[in-house]
Amino acid sequence: TMLRFGHMALPGPLKRFFCSIANATTVLLNPTERVITIKNATNEDKKMHFPLAWLRDNCPCPVCYSASSELRNLKMMDFCPRVNAVSVQMSEQSESMTVSWDDGHSSSYRLEWLRAVAFGADTAGRQRPPLTRNRPVLWCDASKATAPIWQPKKVRFEHIMKSDAELLLTLLELEERGLVLIEDCGVDSEVVKNICKRLSFPRTTHYGETFEMRAEAKPRNLGYTSDRLDFHTDLPYMHEQPGVQALLCQVQASGPGGDSLFADGFSAAEHIRRSRPDLFRLLTTVPVRFRDRGQLADRRFDLVATHATIELDCQPDGEWCYRRVHFSNQQRDLLQAWPLADVQLIYDALKAFNDVIEGRDISSDSSKVQLQVKLRSGEMALFDNSRLLHSRTGFSGERQLAGAYLLWDEVLSRRRTLESQLQIGRQD
Amino acid sequence: TMLRFGHMALPGPLKRFFCSIANATTVLLNPTERVITIKNATNEDKKMHFPLAWLRDNCPCPVCYSASSELRNLKMMDFCPRVNAVSVQMSEQSESMTVSWDDGHSSSYRLEWLRAVAFGADTAGRQRPPLTRNRPVLWCDASKATAPIWQPKKVRFEHIMKSDAELLLTLLELEERGLVLIEDCGVDSEVVKNICKRLSFPRTTHYGETFEMRAEAKPRNLGYTSDRLDFHTDLPYMHEQPGVQALLCQVQASGPGGDSLFADGFSAAEHIRRSRPDLFRLLTTVPVRFRDRGQLADRRFDLVATHATIELDCQPDGEWCYRRVHFSNQQRDLLQAWPLADVQLIYDALKAFNDVIEGRDISSDSSKVQLQVKLRSGEMALFDNSRLLHSRTGFSGERQLAGAYLLWDEVLSRRRTLESQLQIGRQD
Repeated sequence: TMLRFGHMALPGPLKRFFCSIANATTVLLNPTERVITIKNATNEDKKMHFPLAWLRDNCPCPVCYSASSELRNLKMMDFCPRVNAVSVQMSEQSESMTVSWDDGHSSSYRLEWLRAVAFGADTAGRQRPPLTRNRPVLWCDASKATAPIWQPKKVRFEHIMKSDAELLLTLLELEERGLVLIEDCGVDSEVVKNICKRLSFPRTTHYGETFEMRAEAKPRNLGYTSDRLDFHTDLPYMHEQPGVQALLCQVQASGPGGDSLFADGFSAAEHIRRSRPDLFRLLTTVPVRFRDRGQLADRRFDLVATHATIELDCQPDGEWCYRRVHFSNQQRDLLQAWPLADVQLIYDALKAFNDVIEGRDISSDSSKVQLQVKLRSGEMALFDNSRLLHSRTGFSGERQLAGAYLLWDEVLSRRRTLESQLQIGRQD
Repeated sequence: TMLRFGHMALPGPLKRFFCSIANATTVLLNPTERVITIKNATNEDKKMHFPLAWLRDNCPCPVCYSASSELRNLKMMDFCPRVNAVSVQMSEQSESMTVSWDDGHSSSYRLEWLRAVAFGADTAGRQRPPLTRNRPVLWCDASKATAPIWQPKKVRFEHIMKSDAELLLTLLELEERGLVLIEDCGVDSEVVKNICKRLSFPRTTHYGETFEMRAEAKPRNLGYTSDRLDFHTDLPYMHEQPGVQALLCQVQASGPGGDSLFADGFSAAEHIRRSRPDLFRLLTTVPVRFRDRGQLADRRFDLVATHATIELDCQPDGEWCYRRVHFSNQQRDLLQAWPLADVQLIYDALKAFNDVIEGRDISSDSSKVQLQVKLRSGEMALFDNSRLLHSRTGFSGERQLAGAYLLWDEVLSRRRTLESQLQIGRQD
């Protein structure tokens, strides 16, 4: 069966063109809205919409699309977004729809493919691309004050180095919870590099490909002392921040102290949003300037960045999610472009955020946004530096950590390819 | 002369405390607004304001501040944003102001320092931290249709490798114009790494620390063909994108073609903003999904990111500037979360942006947003990948480029330390 709409003068007085084929499927072209709609009489809800410009743009022929690299060959300079359909043909035999365009090109789309990529029938009619990133699972649900504190998953070094399935589970946990502990890594600082390479690769900073951290006589910052630290995110003085951190305990303090503290910045943000929307507004909009200056080896550095404390990812339709948190009292700059009238409330907001993180906010059981763990020698914390704040308790004696940063982009890339390789999750 | 306010019960019925010292300076503490104001009778306009919380937070004593690392020692967990001043003393002898706080601490601030960091007397009363980044100078001023196209600065490789002053000028040019050409680099691919190290360090991607680009029999994308390319930014499928690119011409096509094309994305954005505010709104708000999949060496990758085409940096007070542009037709994903009703206009907007870039928008003399240069062997283009779009004309025969990416954060850090070292620019 082959049905043809024939030539159409657009814009014409006719708004719709109907075409019924054997299996009760109707194809409509709305030349005003410039959308082709395929609907099935037996399932009115399952209308599939295809804007003409989108169809032409995504022509799957070998000239317009490279199947081997999965990239578009059609160039924007050769593409006309107001291209018109000269004819539309449905073929039941080949299970495809063929559109002839007024730019002289002709495109064939398999029905199976069209079903997979259709603009949906809901109000907005969107396609549904998979999430770039799985949604974070908050440590503390602000609406359930009695929820027990979550405990981090522990995996063995050998397992994630040898098993792709174990690595995938670890990356998914890191993505959703922001923290995984890796045991029995050994204490060689090469281990940090090796784990980075297994996940993707270490992202060099001014500290180098990896860094070591111990109490020093002339500390370059409070991290290099044995003091209790404030909760903080690393590298807030960068805009092109790496999102993931690996921190290996090489030597742990033999006495009390030296415990690692982790807090879920998104849970804390959510708590502030519910209890103090006025402060939440400040934390999500006021730019805070961070700066770090110094010298490492023979190179001086002077890194400066401004970020809202709580960075949201806001869509034009009002949907939003938490993107990153940025908090480091040490590196918050002296100079801030804050309006004088807001300064007091900005400090109130920063303190309130810190209070929730520290569990000092007695108005709720907010101790649940943080957890404490004393890493053993050879134990590594792999965590989301764009979401978690971390700290440590004071200690005495020797204690040494080795660390490195990774990119979320690359870690997520690894997760996607592992899912595809192990045939887990949505295939696309 | 030592004047003391004495103890104050706050909040009290008195709103202001006055204190005049010999040189006609008056110090006022407003306990309601929690601000100390220093004013001089001879210059009413030059009021200096200091919020109490800010003063306490930035106490310069060795306990609260580390002069050696230029970082705050005072911890947020120990800081009370509602701290009160018990007394304020002005000392003309030591040219300082001393505040005793109700947390038991006492802070002394040099008047010279206070003058440098004061919250100003304008309506918002802001401090004025230096710009994180110098303002871009647009290639094409949309309000002046007859402005001549700008030509990129050329510097010699040897000069920037040996002279810090020459390097600083080069970085400032890169920051303001987005493009510098470096001549006589030689064609060894180590040169790319060496220039990166001189500027900061190469930022590794899935392509490695550096990459090479030539026409290949099985091209992984259109870059590895000899075709004319669309204008594009590199790595739009990353969120943690490196902002700077170095591209060395190792072998240039001997025949015609192979010219490099650069376009100022901010100038193009500004043109769209003035001519088509409706499309500008779409380009600045609609998230566009980019994806790149494949295999390099033995590692598969699947990188996905969403960005608005024109990314703005918007402040809460309505101030804004251009932050980044993201445009790559090849890697724009098939699947987009666009509302059906907006799809046509989104394509119109993408095409309009491309038309301005390509100089095809005949409504204005928009050819001025792009320039064309045929790099010679040993010539390198150093450019802002977060602002410029680049392309090349088609060619035949052999042509080879070597490239690397750098971080804007690190390049700006280098610029700041060079300025400080060479005592150029604002010292702070």
